[in-house]
Amino acid sequence: MTAADNDSISAAVEVIGDRWSLLVLRGVFRGLHRFGELRDDLGIASNLLTDRLGRLVNYEVLEKVPYQHRPVRYEYRLTESGRALSPVLVAIMQWGDSYRQDPTSAPMTLVHAQCNAPVENITRCTQCNEVLDAQHIRRADHRTSTT
Amino acid sequence: MTAADNDSISAAVEVIGDRWSLLVLRGVFRGLHRFGELRDDLGIASNLLTDRLGRLVNYEVLEKVPYQHRPVRYEYRLTESGRALSPVLVAIMQWGDSYRQDPTSAPMTLVHAQCNAPVENITRCTQCNEVLDAQHIRRADHRTSTT
Repeated sequence: MTAADNDSISAAVEVIGDRWSLLVLRGVFRGLHRFGELRDDLGIASNLLTDRLGRLVNYEVLEKVPYQHRPVRYEYRLTESGRALSPVLVAIMQWGDSYRQDPTSAPMTLVHAQCNAPVENITRCTQCNEVLDAQHIRRADHRTSTT
Repeated sequence: MTAADNDSISAAVEVIGDRWSLLVLRGVFRGLHRFGELRDDLGIASNLLTDRLGRLVNYEVLEKVPYQHRPVRYEYRLTESGRALSPVLVAIMQWGDSYRQDPTSAPMTLVHAQCNAPVENITRCTQCNEVLDAQHIRRADHRTSTT
């Protein structure tokens, strides 16, 4: 068995290690819940969107909720595990802002709704609260870590 | 133009919105720097690994550094922008630990090298320091946000 088979990163990237899945999630976090809204926002082919929504529902990241009954129509809502992807999306966005931003377009700032101040995604120590980069993080298991 | 074309999430997912690219980065963060080490760790076909390493070098997330000169051999090191992906990887791992963990394997804890205490990835307000979930985050631009 390789290391790729059974750790939590590889399990997570099964779900979100896909460009369209991440863009669909970005749309839902931004308040787009219906098939047509997502299709128009993403410029994605309907069959690809159907596939990615189906996968995200199967992985219990999204759930289908009826918003109309005759005829029945569904929209897509984040589940608890879907909402818990918020730090992943914020971390990706923050990295994109810093390193991949199109210089012709302004970055989209996310703010704390109450303070109106920018938000930041960080990794910190749960004991000393220091903000950590990769060189200060190691694995707790018995294998040697060099990062 | 659709929203997918020009924002920092879509620019970032061009680079990392791919299962193998994320797993290659995971390996490099864990101290695997050579082609053979990564191939053996991931159980990935050589042509796929060559492709993903080439993409990550082109995007300046990894750089090729010679570690031997006759014959010349290269290893792959994180650039500054690559190291800045640490919060993305930690956020993905944390989500995987919480929601996708294989119940038969123990989660791999990351700790602060100095304190030996677990690390956590969070999104917080830069003003009040409150840890924020999606419902407390909104966009700072002029469009209406519902999340």
